Amino acid sequence: MILRIDRLQTELPPPSDPDPAGAAAVQELLGGKFGEMSTWLNYTFQSFNFRSRQGARPFYDLLCSIATEEFGHVELVSATVNTMLTGATPIDNGRAPEAALAELKGTGNPHHFLAGGQGALPQNSQGRPWNGDYVFSSGDLIEDLTHNFFLETGARNNKLKVYEMVEHPAARALTGYLLVRGGVHQVAYARALERLTGADMMKLFPSPRIPTDKIPECQPHIQRGEHLKLYRFSENAFREVEAVFNGPHPETGEELVVAEEPHPEGAPATDLPPQPAVFAPGYAPEEIVEIAQRLRKDAGLPDEPTGEVSEHSADPFAALTRA
Amino acid sequence: MILRIDRLQTELPPPSDPDPAGAAAVQELLGGKFGEMSTWLNYTFQSFNFRSRQGARPFYDLLCSIATEEFGHVELVSATVNTMLTGATPIDNGRAPEAALAELKGTGNPHHFLAGGQGALPQNSQGRPWNGDYVFSSGDLIEDLTHNFFLETGARNNKLKVYEMVEHPAARALTGYLLVRGGVHQVAYARALERLTGADMMKLFPSPRIPTDKIPECQPHIQRGEHLKLYRFSENAFREVEAVFNGPHPETGEELVVAEEPHPEGAPATDLPPQPAVFAPGYAPEEIVEIAQRLRKDAGLPDEPTGEVSEHSADPFAALTRA
Amino acid sequence: MILRIDRLQTELPPPSDPDPAGAAAVQELLGGKFGEMSTWLNYTFQSFNFRSRQGARPFYDLLCSIATEEFGHVELVSATVNTMLTGATPIDNGRAPEAALAELKGTGNPHHFLAGGQGALPQNSQGRPWNGDYVFSSGDLIEDLTHNFFLETGARNNKLKVYEMVEHPAARALTGYLLVRGGVHQVAYARALERLTGADMMKLFPSPRIPTDKIPECQPHIQRGEHLKLYRFSENAFREVEAVFNGPHPETGEELVVAEEPHPEGAPATDLPPQPAVFAPGYAPEEIVEIAQRLRKDAGLPDEPTGEVSEHSADPFAALTRA
Amino acid sequence: MILRIDRLQTELPPPSDPDPAGAAAVQELLGGKFGEMSTWLNYTFQSFNFRSRQGARPFYDLLCSIATEEFGHVELVSATVNTMLTGATPIDNGRAPEAALAELKGTGNPHHFLAGGQGALPQNSQGRPWNGDYVFSSGDLIEDLTHNFFLETGARNNKLKVYEMVEHPAARALTGYLLVRGGVHQVAYARALERLTGADMMKLFPSPRIPTDKIPECQPHIQRGEHLKLYRFSENAFREVEAVFNGPHPETGEELVVAEEPHPEGAPATDLPPQPAVFAPGYAPEEIVEIAQRLRKDAGLPDEPTGEVSEHSADPFAALTRA
Amino acid sequence: MILRIDRLQTELPPPSDPDPAGAAAVQELLGGKFGEMSTWLNYTFQSFNFRSRQGARPFYDLLCSIATEEFGHVELVSATVNTMLTGATPIDNGRAPEAALAELKGTGNPHHFLAGGQGALPQNSQGRPWNGDYVFSSGDLIEDLTHNFFLETGARNNKLKVYEMVEHPAARALTGYLLVRGGVHQVAYARALERLTGADMMKLFPSPRIPTDKIPECQPHIQRGEHLKLYRFSENAFREVEAVFNGPHPETGEELVVAEEPHPEGAPATDLPPQPAVFAPGYAPEEIVEIAQRLRKDAGLPDEPTGEVSEHSADPFAALTRA
Amino acid sequence: MILRIDRLQTELPPPSDPDPAGAAAVQELLGGKFGEMSTWLNYTFQSFNFRSRQGARPFYDLLCSIATEEFGHVELVSATVNTMLTGATPIDNGRAPEAALAELKGTGNPHHFLAGGQGALPQNSQGRPWNGDYVFSSGDLIEDLTHNFFLETGARNNKLKVYEMVEHPAARALTGYLLVRGGVHQVAYARALERLTGADMMKLFPSPRIPTDKIPECQPHIQRGEHLKLYRFSENAFREVEAVFNGPHPETGEELVVAEEPHPEGAPATDLPPQPAVFAPGYAPEEIVEIAQRLRKDAGLPDEPTGEVSEHSADPFAALTRA
Repeated sequence: MILRIDRLQTELPPPSDPDPAGAAAVQELLGGKFGEMSTWLNYTFQSFNFRSRQGARPFYDLLCSIATEEFGHVELVSATVNTMLTGATPIDNGRAPEAALAELKGTGNPHHFLAGGQGALPQNSQGRPWNGDYVFSSGDLIEDLTHNFFLETGARNNKLKVYEMVEHPAARALTGYLLVRGGVHQVAYARALERLTGADMMKLFPSPRIPTDKIPECQPHIQRGEHLKLYRFSENAFREVEAVFNGPHPETGEELVVAEEPHPEGAPATDLPPQPAVFAPGYAPEEIVEIAQRLRKDAGLPDEPTGEVSEHSADPFAALTRA
Repeated sequence: MILRIDRLQTELPPPSDPDPAGAAAVQELLGGKFGEMSTWLNYTFQSFNFRSRQGARPFYDLLCSIATEEFGHVELVSATVNTMLTGATPIDNGRAPEAALAELKGTGNPHHFLAGGQGALPQNSQGRPWNGDYVFSSGDLIEDLTHNFFLETGARNNKLKVYEMVEHPAARALTGYLLVRGGVHQVAYARALERLTGADMMKLFPSPRIPTDKIPECQPHIQRGEHLKLYRFSENAFREVEAVFNGPHPETGEELVVAEEPHPEGAPATDLPPQPAVFAPGYAPEEIVEIAQRLRKDAGLPDEPTGEVSEHSADPFAALTRA
Repeated sequence: MILRIDRLQTELPPPSDPDPAGAAAVQELLGGKFGEMSTWLNYTFQSFNFRSRQGARPFYDLLCSIATEEFGHVELVSATVNTMLTGATPIDNGRAPEAALAELKGTGNPHHFLAGGQGALPQNSQGRPWNGDYVFSSGDLIEDLTHNFFLETGARNNKLKVYEMVEHPAARALTGYLLVRGGVHQVAYARALERLTGADMMKLFPSPRIPTDKIPECQPHIQRGEHLKLYRFSENAFREVEAVFNGPHPETGEELVVAEEPHPEGAPATDLPPQPAVFAPGYAPEEIVEIAQRLRKDAGLPDEPTGEVSEHSADPFAALTRA
Repeated sequence: MILRIDRLQTELPPPSDPDPAGAAAVQELLGGKFGEMSTWLNYTFQSFNFRSRQGARPFYDLLCSIATEEFGHVELVSATVNTMLTGATPIDNGRAPEAALAELKGTGNPHHFLAGGQGALPQNSQGRPWNGDYVFSSGDLIEDLTHNFFLETGARNNKLKVYEMVEHPAARALTGYLLVRGGVHQVAYARALERLTGADMMKLFPSPRIPTDKIPECQPHIQRGEHLKLYRFSENAFREVEAVFNGPHPETGEELVVAEEPHPEGAPATDLPPQPAVFAPGYAPEEIVEIAQRLRKDAGLPDEPTGEVSEHSADPFAALTRA
Repeated sequence: MILRIDRLQTELPPPSDPDPAGAAAVQELLGGKFGEMSTWLNYTFQSFNFRSRQGARPFYDLLCSIATEEFGHVELVSATVNTMLTGATPIDNGRAPEAALAELKGTGNPHHFLAGGQGALPQNSQGRPWNGDYVFSSGDLIEDLTHNFFLETGARNNKLKVYEMVEHPAARALTGYLLVRGGVHQVAYARALERLTGADMMKLFPSPRIPTDKIPECQPHIQRGEHLKLYRFSENAFREVEAVFNGPHPETGEELVVAEEPHPEGAPATDLPPQPAVFAPGYAPEEIVEIAQRLRKDAGLPDEPTGEVSEHSADPFAALTRA
Repeated sequence: MILRIDRLQTELPPPSDPDPAGAAAVQELLGGKFGEMSTWLNYTFQSFNFRSRQGARPFYDLLCSIATEEFGHVELVSATVNTMLTGATPIDNGRAPEAALAELKGTGNPHHFLAGGQGALPQNSQGRPWNGDYVFSSGDLIEDLTHNFFLETGARNNKLKVYEMVEHPAARALTGYLLVRGGVHQVAYARALERLTGADMMKLFPSPRIPTDKIPECQPHIQRGEHLKLYRFSENAFREVEAVFNGPHPETGEELVVAEEPHPEGAPATDLPPQPAVFAPGYAPEEIVEIAQRLRKDAGLPDEPTGEVSEHSADPFAALTRA
């Protein structure tokens, strides 16, 4: 089972100019064959199906650690898509004008507006839904690791290309972070394969052949050593990952390390404002807020919401009373 | 982001007589339209896409809490499938005999054997992959809750039918637990709708119209009060769920409660033995164990694996030397 | 079995400025998960699979009545798409010029032009085909009704958003009508659930929370009382629907009624002109007309076609000889 | 728009020995690429998209007439599947025993039991859902007719093979009828092509090369002349079909005719008994019946249900009190 | 088994102005239901499954001959897509600038850039993947031929429309050639049906009703007699095709012939330049070239590559050093 | 373009006891994610999309050579499925008895009988169609090779498991051959990666960890050196493959070689007898034979069919007159 921490693994910029076409492209990193849902669910299913866990504990611990991080990547891509879609529909006295979506006709993924509430979807950049055929879980440890190394390679390709295509600040912050963390996972799987077979795969790095030190948005994370560190994403478990994840980084030669802390500190998410034109969270969001306030009071909760959100978060009332 | 706890939410019996046809049916609860992947990913995407979190905090906290529990349900169904498939292929001195899968021809889901390593798949009972079309995330809070109430209703239907079809002890333990916990989620969504609209939906329970107190495998969980309790599945967050989840249970009249503890205690998973006929975790599992042992030693880890598994867990060596 | 009446359930405006991107969006109401194919086929399959029809006759009659109306909605959306696509390709002396589709490259759903003849498709706004996974037919009457209430809610969401996105007169006439009629179905299913369970669901209306009286294109239909009336769509059958469909309308308090007449009067469809650039109904439509005329004569049919079409219908010869 | 007549186009035998594996095979005729959903929706979409209706009226009328008949075929296949599944689960004092579905594990289409209520599904014999890619609507009349002739050929193939595979009386009655009626449609499309092009396609009959007079279950329908007759399935419209559908039948030389009456007389459907093990129409069907009876009384309806069902229809109470 | 000849069946122009939106449309001819993958794989599977080959040899030989040609059509469409995508991303000193794909956001098929390397995909014009449901292989020779005639008709429709929509020189050269060759296959299947049944189908030509002699890009191929000639695509086999493929061409009356030579002479493909922005064939293509050169030397191969490419082929170094 | 040689790459045994359930399992090697359609179409698309062919010629030649061999593997799997299905339906005086498919109800892939003519399908072992999402063609040479190495690993897994599940002689002959040839491709891609990157991947062999010398059906091919040899499958092209494919075999140390001859000698296919119950090649196959004979005579062809088939091939007349 899992516990949820209501923070993102890294900070994302708040909404700025909306970019619906860019958001449609970023979806590739969410619901594409090489998107984060794929990395997440591949490793998760492999960990569920792992036989002989005690006997092969370090490898099981590796899969569990990486799998758990990937949930946070799905969350990050979703937050990015939501950020990029914010503001794409107009607000008029808290109500949507009559043709509020007219300018979006023919732009981006129509489901962002017609089916969803300017929110992320389990779909790729073509609007096709993620599906379970994207999960490989053969049960054969060497094969699964071979697959995972390949999957991370394909994922890196997709991230680089989305980086090149989408200049929105949120997309750039996202891809900068994911390239660094994906790089760690790519190394981890290659190293695990080496440990099991003796093959030397380090010369395959980087693949694609762009070093992350050429990408500006990767630098803050590299400077914090995030390219060397594996988190266990567990308070107590998965400690044996260190038996596999060690040795020099293939590109920099620095030593790989398992982090002491269970997870990166991260940052609170931005509380995105309502988009009443798409009924998110409703046609009259202020009524929902009012009801919530009453329920909170009845339950003896403090006047201010107890949740943590970023300092950029909108005051939902402000957004709604904007004329 | 999430942390993983390497325990199941409830105890499952260890492998007994294998049941490949039953495992194929249980897959409906994993990758079916109303399976646990659907409940998990629906609520997770809805929480990612939630706008005005501070304004509508109790509802956000409710979605996050339930979403997070659902991961554990996916894990439980997967463990059940794995348990039921264990032993379906013979072992001969640690090696698979030549026609090791011959008796499985035409039985169950062929991907359990031909594609996977006698492990769970993101597929339904017909072998069709789960897909993102099963996720509904309109952004409209009332609609999303209406959907979720319906989804839990459909999920309860499927669980009851799998209960009736599959008598394997693991499947029965699974469905007994899931029916109780799914019932809590069904009530929670109906209650949230009541809070937002004033509609009185409690007379819709139970739906389907079988009270869980008629199902023997539900009783231990009901006796522990699990039918009344919502876990937050977070150390500190999601505390405002209590503003929504309260009042009498529609069937028993007992008071609903938010648990003090973040999650149920649960139980360690069984470490399932290798199945070399399908190369899980390899054709020669003992070599993997040997390598792992060496890596563990090099890393200064204790001689015994540090992970927690159930007392029923197989000694992988024992399994492999069985003639 | 069914009989077909060659009229639309409501009047649609004739072709005006073509709107291929809008037509692609309107497809969501045809082949989307919440489109009219879904409502139609859900209720139709539920009626086919209804057990204990005599025992539960009023509910069976309700499903049959609504199911049958939905066919007409599919027909209306299709007619709207066809109307909006008419004129999107040029006509030159009855023949398509060489690059007749060049301006449509990259606009709308490419299958409207490359695969079809500027006609409606069983696809959604992303060009993905409708599929049978969108049908829910559990056989459990309460569940099916719960589903149907939810389905109508999602359908209302989609209609409102298409209304906001597409300003073409045909699209507006369509959504105005469908919102009113869909509202009747939404109420009908909620009322049926109330009758079976005693739950009070009326406070869920409207959902989404926009009253139809705020939408101009709904008003003519509301003024004719179409928001209160259920048609049986049968000469003699389905009379027991009145045992379920009655009581006050949740938004207006007016009494719901079962119409005396089997179906709305409706209006004839516009006979849309040929589009020879996409070979509809042929590269040389006048030759088809000539053959048809000869066959009609041989069969002793009157000189003028016997079918009923709207007064706006094109003279196909006129269209073809336009320079 | 359409009106529904609550009768089947031909009589089907009442439930006898259940045949779940046979029902799974019969699904090919419902949701398969060449199943009745395909014929129905192909011709329906082609009629919706028909341009120049007045100019090419006889062909439009032909498409509409056949399309409308196909609805009744979908209804017939569904009724057959329902009939064959009836009795597949046991009834014990009106309640399902604990392992009521155990014997069905591994048999037939699992969705008949786990997802549905022993009812028909929009799926093929492999459990894959019907989808919109099966619809061809090019707008080019000659092409659409070429497609339709081919589609009927493929449909005839599938019907013959289901006939050979499934011996259940309902399946045999179904295929006997459909082969005769499908034969009429196959001829109609070939004849329409001949009229438009002058090609002589009659020597393609029968295709596959089994004359229906070799199939015993076809004989009653042939004796009634059903192999020669096209119904318009409309009170007043589609009269110009006679300009196309005429001339000699390619196999018998008899003259083709357009029926005077709008539709075949048909027969009432059997009211199939509840199957409480799958909650159809509920876990406690007698309660639904009781509620319905009360609602009927309140509405001033007669004591006996007004609907028409076959004389073989079960008394739902009888079924439920069987011990 | 097959041998590959590294030439295209006809000459294509070299890259000129890139046309990503056009390339997305051309994909319909590759991965669409009526695209070349469909014709190729339909006839190929039918030939694999052909029973009684010796007894029905001329028909088997016909299927094999046409099937084999279709591979070359898939190759041609792919080359066209690749040609049209060449140059869509900028090159700066052999390296991709930071936002190299920014101008492509929202244009064409995003997988051409995000997933692939500006290359062809097994997808249609909507970005949906080709799938095996598009293959019809009933085993019944007459039915399979009926299908194939229809398939070629639909394919001709799609080619004509792509011709009308896409004016890029490569697309026009492609469709001009394919229309002529597809016409031969359409005639061949109709003729085969005539031979087997006696039906006279020649009046169905052309379908759609545009004679290829109205299309300028068809003329060079018609002048070479390519509209009359069937190639066997085998050194020695499939000689009996001449027993079926003979008689007058339905449009021109000229005699159909089986070519003496096994295949058309064709032309070498253009060696398309690297596109480093999408890492094709790598981020630093010159390094790959250098390695290849070294390997060639070690293997004793001549200094110049031995492969045959068109005279328009880029010098990869030139492309990379362009500023 | 390609030429077709009407021989199989290796000899398959003639039909013996039919094995429909086994044939359904073997389909995984045809239409599964790791089946031969996937290997074939992956490498083929990669070769179509290859940029800088002259610069990277040895790698292009490698892809083309292997791609072309894979066609023959698809052909072999298809022939195996056809062989295993032969005889599954009875023949009675050349005509199918009335319930000819009754014993096949619930066995194997229903499409083998209901949709096809006891022939191979582009589907996997679950009856799901192959689709274009299984093709990876990134354009990045290193990535594509990484993918291909992984794909061959997964393919080897599937072949081994089908070997274990299906004992039919044709399936065993097939998997014995494919394991040897797939092994060559697995080595080739790993070697190519080594050449490009310097990584040493040879210790990954064999993966899965079963040496082919433990599998009896591999031995004849190993003895002929087929595990060391790459064929170019071209008369003249692809000669530079020798610059990549060389060095020691990772398991045996023997030197890898590029074959002098373009392709293996192979063997003629068995001409499989008609199966009239499924109309393959027709309901009355002898009539087709008779027509073919007449056409052959008219064309001046010799009395005996000119095609080459194996000595085990059935006399179609013999099969048909068996009582």
